[in-house]
Amino acid sequence: MAGLAAQAGVKLRPHAKTHKSPVSAHLQLARGAVGQCTQKVAEAEVLAWGGVPDILVSNEVVSPRKLARLGALTRIARIAVCADHPDGVAAIEAAAEAAGTRLSVLVVIDVGTGRCGVAPGEAAEALARRIAASRHLAFGGLQAYRGRAQHRRSPEERAAAIAEAAQAAGRTVEGLRRAGLDCPIVGGAGTGTFALEAVSGVFTELQVGSYAFMDADYARNDPPPPFRQALFVLATVMSVPRDGAAVVDAGHKALPTDSGMRLVWGRDGIRYEGPSDEHGRLVLEPGAARPKLGERLRLVPGHCDPTVDRYGWYVGIRNGRAECLWPVAARGTMA
Amino acid sequence: MAGLAAQAGVKLRPHAKTHKSPVSAHLQLARGAVGQCTQKVAEAEVLAWGGVPDILVSNEVVSPRKLARLGALTRIARIAVCADHPDGVAAIEAAAEAAGTRLSVLVVIDVGTGRCGVAPGEAAEALARRIAASRHLAFGGLQAYRGRAQHRRSPEERAAAIAEAAQAAGRTVEGLRRAGLDCPIVGGAGTGTFALEAVSGVFTELQVGSYAFMDADYARNDPPPPFRQALFVLATVMSVPRDGAAVVDAGHKALPTDSGMRLVWGRDGIRYEGPSDEHGRLVLEPGAARPKLGERLRLVPGHCDPTVDRYGWYVGIRNGRAECLWPVAARGTMA
Repeated sequence: MAGLAAQAGVKLRPHAKTHKSPVSAHLQLARGAVGQCTQKVAEAEVLAWGGVPDILVSNEVVSPRKLARLGALTRIARIAVCADHPDGVAAIEAAAEAAGTRLSVLVVIDVGTGRCGVAPGEAAEALARRIAASRHLAFGGLQAYRGRAQHRRSPEERAAAIAEAAQAAGRTVEGLRRAGLDCPIVGGAGTGTFALEAVSGVFTELQVGSYAFMDADYARNDPPPPFRQALFVLATVMSVPRDGAAVVDAGHKALPTDSGMRLVWGRDGIRYEGPSDEHGRLVLEPGAARPKLGERLRLVPGHCDPTVDRYGWYVGIRNGRAECLWPVAARGTMA
Repeated sequence: MAGLAAQAGVKLRPHAKTHKSPVSAHLQLARGAVGQCTQKVAEAEVLAWGGVPDILVSNEVVSPRKLARLGALTRIARIAVCADHPDGVAAIEAAAEAAGTRLSVLVVIDVGTGRCGVAPGEAAEALARRIAASRHLAFGGLQAYRGRAQHRRSPEERAAAIAEAAQAAGRTVEGLRRAGLDCPIVGGAGTGTFALEAVSGVFTELQVGSYAFMDADYARNDPPPPFRQALFVLATVMSVPRDGAAVVDAGHKALPTDSGMRLVWGRDGIRYEGPSDEHGRLVLEPGAARPKLGERLRLVPGHCDPTVDRYGWYVGIRNGRAECLWPVAARGTMA
């Protein structure tokens, strides 16, 4: 990803909501990333405490207590945060003033996701002017993430969605320029569409996360992103109750179920289905080798971000040997 | 639940896979529970270290390393575990012998769940005899959980399923008795069906978990179990982008999505839908009061067990005041 971003002449700011680990962040920085994104203030704290120098909370933070924590964090890292409402800007401003610091604020524009964000164009410009006019704030640019486009299966659907997003963001950048406001960052993109944002001429930063690990859902895109599956959950076959059936000890708690069923890595003809809290039923197609009682199987998570967030540690494996243990240091940072 | 079990003359052994907390376990023991169930060895360790004296791992454990940990745990607590295969029994036997202890083993019978377990009747009897014949094991009884029946919506469906389960378990108990083997425990039941197992004349223990907290899914049963909702996830309104819309900062990572969408507590006309990793979209029905930016809302989890497992702490609230902080001590115990 670092190479692809450099080739396209855009910056890379990987998203730590995926890996939740200062170790991963430093590996990405060493390969040329300009910083990290987080979704939560607590994630930003964990990264800053772990020595990450440049962090964008790519999400609206509105609670005064959380903003006070962000203000304090500017002592040890460069911090930016997002807003999509004048009241949010006022709350950030109050926190920055109280902390005696200046916070960089990006305006979230809704480029088709239909979730958060102000409308592109005039509404965004008004909010940007409000930010730029504050003594305690700096206008950091635009956050223009088109989330749902990441998982559209066909290249045409993804291209159309990102073209629309780039057009809306570009129009807003132009308007801001006419008003005398530069956009240091126009951020967005994800593992499903980053190549489109990279060549759009509008986006300056790719804020991708999942590429580092991949998952079963991204692998279903056509074509799949050019990254190998690196994240697995190790499960044990705990029951072989009948011919053609086996049960592993990994269910809802071990793997999220929001992006379809999990795959069994390297074992053709075995489907994981019917998860319950602590169990996963494996269905064997005719001729598939039946797993043995006690056998360990690698499951490919349907969705990498919520999977990582359930575990305390990564076990790094190379050539079949455990080579490192990295803490998922920002696990469970909900706020 | 303690009162209902006592009234029916059955024991109560609540399931710690729900609460994952020695504090909750001790509260249940103080109200008459005979012990606790767990699904994982690591959960049993956390409970035993926290002073819980009687623990049934109501699940098949087949890994020698996990069984060695269970063997060690018999020094500080009474431990039982489950099996559904002669190889599993042999592994438990080896661990008990190595630890110089005797492990109690229950036979899991498949009473209609179609997941783990041996068939009721002869297959179960053969496995029970294998256990009883070992110098290192004690036959602990039958585990006869009919999981899927818990969430059948109509009372007739639930009654039919549990009648079938009780019949299968009862037939197996009879066969064992003829073979000279008593069943100290016939365990099963869940929050959706416990009243049926309680009066079945077959089950000796109710191994219920969710009743302590309740969730949106159990509340959809007809009639709902007679327990109040006690578990909430506090979310903040982080964006109010359009009329009729609001977004909270709790998505896939904050709440499981396996049992349907979450409810917003005490706020009529607000539906939570469209979760993404970190966001939840609220849809307001006409006339519903729109939440304010920064407002805190209580979300009712769809499924309590996987929700609890995502958090480090319970915050106990009484009359609007935070009264205690309890660690979710066995959070993330996947093995």
